[in-house]
Formats: sequence, structure tokens, C-alpha cells
Amino acid sequence: MPDDGLMGELRAFVSERDWSQFHSASNLAKSVSIEAGELLECYQWSDDAPLENVRGELADVLTYCLMLADRLGLDPKAIVRTKLEETRQKYPVDRAKGRSTKYDRL
Amino acid sequence: MPDDGLMGELRAFVSERDWSQFHSASNLAKSVSIEAGELLECYQWSDDAPLENVRGELADVLTYCLMLADRLGLDPKAIVRTKLEETRQKYPVDRAKGRSTKYDRL
Amino acid sequence: MPDDGLMGELRAFVSERDWSQFHSASNLAKSVSIEAGELLECYQWSDDAPLENVRGELADVLTYCLMLADRLGLDPKAIVRTKLEETRQKYPVDRAKGRSTKYDRL
Amino acid sequence: MPDDGLMGELRAFVSERDWSQFHSASNLAKSVSIEAGELLECYQWSDDAPLENVRGELADVLTYCLMLADRLGLDPKAIVRTKLEETRQKYPVDRAKGRSTKYDRL
Repeated sequence: MPDDGLMGELRAFVSERDWSQFHSASNLAKSVSIEAGELLECYQWSDDAPLENVRGELADVLTYCLMLADRLGLDPKAIVRTKLEETRQKYPVDRAKGRSTKYDRL
Repeated sequence: MPDDGLMGELRAFVSERDWSQFHSASNLAKSVSIEAGELLECYQWSDDAPLENVRGELADVLTYCLMLADRLGLDPKAIVRTKLEETRQKYPVDRAKGRSTKYDRL
Repeated sequence: MPDDGLMGELRAFVSERDWSQFHSASNLAKSVSIEAGELLECYQWSDDAPLENVRGELADVLTYCLMLADRLGLDPKAIVRTKLEETRQKYPVDRAKGRSTKYDRL
Repeated sequence: MPDDGLMGELRAFVSERDWSQFHSASNLAKSVSIEAGELLECYQWSDDAPLENVRGELADVLTYCLMLADRLGLDPKAIVRTKLEETRQKYPVDRAKGRSTKYDRL
């Protein structure tokens, strides 16, 4: 995601407000959880949710994820790819196909 | 993020396992919250966390965020940018600088 | 809940292990969120969940809630009652009946 | 907690509003997570939080926990006690004392 300058825009936003003092990795991890709760609230009583609400809450989760990755020197796309490869190993197609069973009981 | 094919890889991963039947928007929103809890667990008792653990859990949160965005036809980078612009309005530099106060009490 | 000695048992459990040093209010709040995520995981892909799993995860959420209340000098049952009264005001029967709408849009 | 009628008050509150139709176990588990996120928000940027805010958010988490227990026919105090006994076994005093290490690495 940093490729087209988005990470730079996020850094500038934080820096202009002198907010990096609040953005410890631990506080950012809390923030991801808090925003994930707000995202879930869109679906609290129904499987349908107004797209506009979801759009905003999902953006908040993503934003804190990107800030946490940046704080820790991690590349968001690279870690998603690495994890995808690990998950491929844990859930081989022939055993996982069409099943939502967790890998340790496949 | 879809620009270099990552979203295509995620779609192929899901499709090969016939998992899209489980990936309703509501289930993906739950999954984001569940993984955000695992990310937070890295920081449960300490502000320091093993980078390798955080790497994996943060990747899980990001992965479900990307899948949810894709499910709803949202562009991850575009929604982060739109939200950033909205947050800029809510937290003007002159009032927000150096303060973690919520916008409605700034 | 403290009436029959349960809170005393929880305190003894923590004290024997010399764990109160880890149990700041902030860490206990994180713990509530982490365990709430594990509870939610029981329902990640289905509305049905093995009762035995839910039993254990719900107990964990409750345990950390009780510890946090105790840490802050709050009485669990009293705060539930107080909040129930507040929620009654926000959701009058005649307007809220049969609707899951949030109070600010009722 | 049901001993002094609190559970009965919660049931009456739900019943008067005809809300049990929304209170599936799965929706209640989501609600626990959502409210746990709001509780955590009190501690997002600081280890101190206004007691009045925490009081209200902790009450919300507890309320949904009690409703979920009731929905599933579980006794809140009994499951906390059972889990406490299990945790005692996993964290023997001599090995766990003064350490926040997870049981599988003790």
C-alpha cells in the first residue's frame, strides 16, 4: 500500500498534529480492536448494513492497521502475502475444500 | 492494494477452497474483530510484543479487511483516503495539535 | 455477585499468583476485549456453537469484567442495574417495541 | 447473579420491548464484543479513564454476558467458578507466581 504515497499521507496527517506521541504500537493495537468493534456494530442485529457506515468503519480499521505496520517497520502487502502462504500450508485444498473447520481439526 | 495482484491472490485462495459460501460480509466483519482480539493479545500484559507474533496477527486482520472490502466492492486505498480527508476536517491542526481529545470535545 | 464469596475466590486466585501487578484497569479492559474475541470466534462461521466452548469463553469474559469492577471499586450488579435504568429511559417501550433501531434514530 | 432478581429484571426489560427476536446467541456474542470495544476505548490513549465512562461501558459488557448466559441456560457464577478451577490447574502457583507467561510456555 505505500507504493502510491498513501503511507506518506498518513504519516503527514499524524505528524502535523504531533500525534506520534500517542501512537505506540500497543495503543495502535487497541485502536484496531476498538474500530473493529465499531465495524461489527454495523452488523449487530442484521446481516445487512448500510454500505456508507461500513465504508467508514472499515477505513478506520485499515488506517490503524497501516499505522501499526508502519510503526513496526512492516510492509502491509508483504505480511499479507507471507501469511497467505502459511495459511495455504495449514489448509490444503483437498482437505479444506467447502469446510469451515479449523486447521487443527481438519 | 489490488493494483499488483494481491486481491487476485486472495480471491484465488478463497475460490480454490470453495470458502466464499462462508464469507458473508457479516462473517467477515466478525472475523476482523476476532483477529483484532488476537492482535491485541500480543500486548495484553506488556507494551512490548514479539514482532513475529504481531506480524502474523496484523496480517490476519488486514486479510479479512481486504476480503470484506472486496466483498462489498470497496477499494481499500480509496476508502482510507476518503476517511483521512474526513478526519482532517474533524481534527483541524490548530485545535488538535498534541492532544488526544475526541473531536466532539476539541 | 460478590455476595456469596465469588469475588473473594477471584482475589485469592490472583493474590496467590502475585498477579495483581499485571492487573491494571487498562490491562483488564484489554483482557475483556481479547476474551470477547474468543467468545465471538465460537460463532465465526455459524450461528450455532458448541455449548462447552461458549461456556468457557463466556466465563473468561465475565471473570475479567468482575476483576475490572473490583479493581475500580464498582459493584457488578449495581452498575448493571443503574445502566438498565438508563437504557429504559433511552428506549421507551412505546417507541422501541419490536425494533432494533438505535435510540438516537427512534 | 440471578439470586436477587437481576436476571428477572433483564428478562422483563427485553420482553416488554419484544427484543428477544434479536437476541440470538450469535447476536449477543457480537454485542459483547462491540461493548468490549467501547470499554477499551476508555483506555485508548491513556491508562487512566473517567470512572463514569468505564462504569457505563463495563455495565454494557456485563449485561450482554448475562443475557447470553441466560439464553444458553448457563449460570453466570457457576461458569466463572468452573473456569476458575480449570485455570488453577493450568497455572499452578509454584510455576505461575509473579509471571504473566501463558500456560503453554510456563
